[in-house]
Amino acid sequence: MTAAGEGEREHGDDEQSVERMFDCQEVPPWTQQLTLRSLAVSAILGFFLSFIVMKLNLTAGIIPSLNVSAGLLGFFMVKTWTTLLEKTGLLNQPFTRQENTVIQTCVVACSGIAFSGGFGSYILGMSKKVADQFGEADTGVNMKEPSLGWLICFLLAVSFVGLFSVVPLRRIMIIAYKLTYPSGTATAHLINSFHTPQGALLARKQVSLLFKTFGASFIWAMFQWFYTASDGCGFVSFPTFGLQAYENRFYFDFSATYVGVGMICPYIINISLFLGSIISWGILWPYIRSKQGVWYDASLPESSLHGINGYKVFISIAMILGDGLFHFLVVFFRSSYDMYNKRQRKDAATPFADAAALVGPCLSFDDRRRSNVFLKDQIPTTVAIAGYVLFAVISVIAVPFIFPQLKFYHIIVAYIIAPVLAFCNSYGCGLTDWSLASSYGKLAIFIFGAWIGMNNGGVLAGLASCGVMMSIVSTASDLMQDLKTGYLTLSSPRSMFVSQVIGTAMGCVIAPSVFWIFYSAFDLGSETSGYPAPYAKVYRGIAILGVEGLSALPKYCLNFCAVFFFVSFAINGLKEVAKYKNWKIYNYIPSAMGMAIPFYLGSYFTIDMCVGSLILYLWERADKRHATVFAPAVASGLICGDGIWSLPASLLSLAKVQPPICMKFLSRADNDKVDAFLSG
Amino acid sequence: MTAAGEGEREHGDDEQSVERMFDCQEVPPWTQQLTLRSLAVSAILGFFLSFIVMKLNLTAGIIPSLNVSAGLLGFFMVKTWTTLLEKTGLLNQPFTRQENTVIQTCVVACSGIAFSGGFGSYILGMSKKVADQFGEADTGVNMKEPSLGWLICFLLAVSFVGLFSVVPLRRIMIIAYKLTYPSGTATAHLINSFHTPQGALLARKQVSLLFKTFGASFIWAMFQWFYTASDGCGFVSFPTFGLQAYENRFYFDFSATYVGVGMICPYIINISLFLGSIISWGILWPYIRSKQGVWYDASLPESSLHGINGYKVFISIAMILGDGLFHFLVVFFRSSYDMYNKRQRKDAATPFADAAALVGPCLSFDDRRRSNVFLKDQIPTTVAIAGYVLFAVISVIAVPFIFPQLKFYHIIVAYIIAPVLAFCNSYGCGLTDWSLASSYGKLAIFIFGAWIGMNNGGVLAGLASCGVMMSIVSTASDLMQDLKTGYLTLSSPRSMFVSQVIGTAMGCVIAPSVFWIFYSAFDLGSETSGYPAPYAKVYRGIAILGVEGLSALPKYCLNFCAVFFFVSFAINGLKEVAKYKNWKIYNYIPSAMGMAIPFYLGSYFTIDMCVGSLILYLWERADKRHATVFAPAVASGLICGDGIWSLPASLLSLAKVQPPICMKFLSRADNDKVDAFLSG
Repeated sequence: MTAAGEGEREHGDDEQSVERMFDCQEVPPWTQQLTLRSLAVSAILGFFLSFIVMKLNLTAGIIPSLNVSAGLLGFFMVKTWTTLLEKTGLLNQPFTRQENTVIQTCVVACSGIAFSGGFGSYILGMSKKVADQFGEADTGVNMKEPSLGWLICFLLAVSFVGLFSVVPLRRIMIIAYKLTYPSGTATAHLINSFHTPQGALLARKQVSLLFKTFGASFIWAMFQWFYTASDGCGFVSFPTFGLQAYENRFYFDFSATYVGVGMICPYIINISLFLGSIISWGILWPYIRSKQGVWYDASLPESSLHGINGYKVFISIAMILGDGLFHFLVVFFRSSYDMYNKRQRKDAATPFADAAALVGPCLSFDDRRRSNVFLKDQIPTTVAIAGYVLFAVISVIAVPFIFPQLKFYHIIVAYIIAPVLAFCNSYGCGLTDWSLASSYGKLAIFIFGAWIGMNNGGVLAGLASCGVMMSIVSTASDLMQDLKTGYLTLSSPRSMFVSQVIGTAMGCVIAPSVFWIFYSAFDLGSETSGYPAPYAKVYRGIAILGVEGLSALPKYCLNFCAVFFFVSFAINGLKEVAKYKNWKIYNYIPSAMGMAIPFYLGSYFTIDMCVGSLILYLWERADKRHATVFAPAVASGLICGDGIWSLPASLLSLAKVQPPICMKFLSRADNDKVDAFLSG
Repeated sequence: MTAAGEGEREHGDDEQSVERMFDCQEVPPWTQQLTLRSLAVSAILGFFLSFIVMKLNLTAGIIPSLNVSAGLLGFFMVKTWTTLLEKTGLLNQPFTRQENTVIQTCVVACSGIAFSGGFGSYILGMSKKVADQFGEADTGVNMKEPSLGWLICFLLAVSFVGLFSVVPLRRIMIIAYKLTYPSGTATAHLINSFHTPQGALLARKQVSLLFKTFGASFIWAMFQWFYTASDGCGFVSFPTFGLQAYENRFYFDFSATYVGVGMICPYIINISLFLGSIISWGILWPYIRSKQGVWYDASLPESSLHGINGYKVFISIAMILGDGLFHFLVVFFRSSYDMYNKRQRKDAATPFADAAALVGPCLSFDDRRRSNVFLKDQIPTTVAIAGYVLFAVISVIAVPFIFPQLKFYHIIVAYIIAPVLAFCNSYGCGLTDWSLASSYGKLAIFIFGAWIGMNNGGVLAGLASCGVMMSIVSTASDLMQDLKTGYLTLSSPRSMFVSQVIGTAMGCVIAPSVFWIFYSAFDLGSETSGYPAPYAKVYRGIAILGVEGLSALPKYCLNFCAVFFFVSFAINGLKEVAKYKNWKIYNYIPSAMGMAIPFYLGSYFTIDMCVGSLILYLWERADKRHATVFAPAVASGLICGDGIWSLPASLLSLAKVQPPICMKFLSRADNDKVDAFLSG
């Protein structure tokens, strides 16, 4: 929210004008903003970030914003490229901030698919491995194994519709309503600063630090690999707080990724995660486990959802749904209220009138200049509507081929509701920076799952419709976010839109391919592997709930779910009230969503993230300014280095090269037995 | 040598006078320099450092100078104490640099016994465990198990003689000959700087850093403990470079101690160590092992000195003896030449004339002031002679009771030779900072061992006489070193002498007690334990060589020994010539002594030390000035924290509390077998 605040200040204050600094620079025409080199760099970075997002998806499922890393790396790569060319005298085009914005947009669109493609959630939730863990609805009609072919086709069919659905609304959202889009504004701020001489120096320092921590993190991940000969080996299984605590998933797993994520996430999120893990793994599960044989059949395997695992998954679903519903309601009411107010104020000038009329002399220099550029290159509404209809038709025809469980009329219904939801989400995201794409996706699971029913493959259809809905809603808000960035960096909306389309197209091929590498190399979705993909189970659980109702849950599980649903609702309510009333307690109210995630996974990654918080805290105490400038670079380096090691690691695994050593942790008694066994 | 250089500059240059800064401070009388609080602090620090020295003795045997840590900690403790008292208004005496010097002297004397007491060398070399590894001379008459009683008696009997032997020569060595005593000068420099306001601030920063790294190192050592349930467990057995390399002792063992030691030792020493380990464990031992069954009986146990272990121990002895002999000759010739020159120059004023005559107006202000103070408090020569005779008589009577193998006439002979050697060593140490106490000790092993013969317990008698000789020679040079420190800090020689005597007395009780804790708690001298005590085997090996001759060695071992003896001699010769001729190559010639140590132990600690060098190098590259000031504090913190953990660790071991977890390293094949075994 800080970034948003800074963005606002710029608008109002003419003395701190950003655009005056860039006054001597001409804005290149939109075709020159979209250069070949920028697309090449985007493809490389897109691949790179897709890997990292995919790894995050498939481990704990917490994905921080990688915009800063993408911005830094994109700037660095093109800058290096142009510097090299300058030396050879071959440079015919300088590196502009518009081009930088194009890269940013394209990269985010590409790696965004790795998230909204749902590889760690609905796609994997369709697989046999996850289905088998539920022990119900594991019939052929409710399962579909991932495969590269249909994944790419499905994504290509559903990912572009969203872009066309909101593009006509850009002037209203950005110029008329002046929505903040905090992340987009922050990114624009970053890109603008890179292209001032002082900013470029700082960026160089940040990049240098990013690369150092990147290298360290990569080497650390590689070093760890050697000691991970099989499950339960290596640093990832280090019983840092003793074997007892390890069995209850309290340990520090030496993951540079989640230490980095912890450095980026706000303190309160990390504390919420830790709190959630203590409540669940420290108190609740041991208690429920003590009822083994009474509340549930003791002979069930550990992974069965009719046993202890059912409590874990469904209580966590209840909290996530409670949180999602609350945010949906808040964003809905705030948006409606906000729009109502704006309409009241500007009686005559309805928002749908030509926004150009709003560009008057009463605006600041920056605003006038930005609005002029923004309004110069138009994307005709007819193109947008034609695009939407075209892609919707393709989708209506293609998707039922991929998922016979979904009929063409289901998709048509989805495409009639979708633009409304896309608009809602773009608007909410502009206000709060909170994209609710996954909440809309969960809504779709319920609606379509119940409509189609178990025997017709309702579970699978629910998951697939979640994919259709999430893609539209998520790409729509991404586009609007990027258009805001473009607005603030004087980039043409046309180049933004085209680069978003190209980035999305790249993502539709890159993301499934990256997923395919992981899927072939690792045992995704199994709890003991390094890739538990917690959301796959959550999403399938939601689908089963939607189709089957609540009958399948173990004893008292529904009661627990109800309690935690309302706790989640209440915490959010309290937080909202505290924010409104400016209570001090606001900063200390945990996030219900954050608390829910470790319910299923255990606390190891929350401990990593708290370590990240601790590092940041100590750093801030030692040198606040330094920490603020460089911590995001360090965190990005940690996340990227560890994430990118997944690439060689998965290739090694595909080539059947296994690590040579097992670093094993045995109790002393076991160790004595093993020593006797090995020597005898 | 830098410190020495700085010391010299001070003497010559009146404008940079140190004593002018302290001009307003009165020098307290010697009885006020020796305060009760200084002795209390000394006892605490002496105990503390004895632990650390003992740990170093018993692990790799490399002991860096801990003077800086002692100085810093002593200053910090008394300063805290006086600050607290000042606040309560009870302070009746300020903290002077003379008092600080007294603490320094007392602490070094006390912890010095932990080294010169030979617990890791001749004392442990007498034990059955080490004797059994040789498989010869392991008869009762050539063994003696350590026990607290006789250790204390023996040390009390032999440790004071050395002090009295050189005290009459103090004026000649320090005022007439102006010997440098680099360590003593550096310590004085440090203490003087502490007592200027700016120095006190810097010292406070250094102490704060020392405590931070101390804490980190202590916690790290404690953390490691939990994973070390038995041999081959934990970080100390981490096959950092793979299992193959681990078997050849190439691994990083995560020891904070030796990383710290590496930061203090010069780069060339660390590189020499590493070079030695590559030559021996990388090339030589694998080659000799390939001759198993040809050169030596393949059925012998790994530890037998008639097998591969014989090559390791005796080749390393050959290099150490070659190095020792070379240094002995160099120091002997240089000292003789130096003395000859000085006598020539000052025809009339023989060094034994009253040195007071030398305190003329031609000297700098500092020199005059210091000489005046130094000559004010006298220690009458009659006291010195009486003391020497008294303690020699006690020793002559007591030692044969402890070691019946040594007769009274052996001791008398030792005490007739000793003062000459003590003078030689003090003089050489003053010139080069190189105390050759252990070389003189080895000489004594040969002489007395051969004299007494195997059947009369020559091996044991040799080791015991080594103790007698080393104590005298080592305490004598320590005293002179401290007197130099006292000279430069205007401390009275009388208070220096008394604090040295008190420190020695403390050491005679503290050091054996600390050794006793280690001895009771750990399996000292066994290769697989964390405490291989390499020098115990080396010293016993020398004794056996002296008594038995060379017949017992395995095939070609003597040839190897001869080659390495001459290599060692040649390297030293080259180094000496390069130094004399100012060849650039001088800085790159390795140390033969350094190369010899890993021959027996393997390279793990040399890798630690190289890591220390690397850290220092990177730090110096980043900020040379900062590194120079703070690296010794960081290194001391690392060494002390890890060393002090030995105290709770040994107490836990004595209380039979064992670590709960074994962090084990298995090859993948073994791991699969173990997994099957544990689950089946």
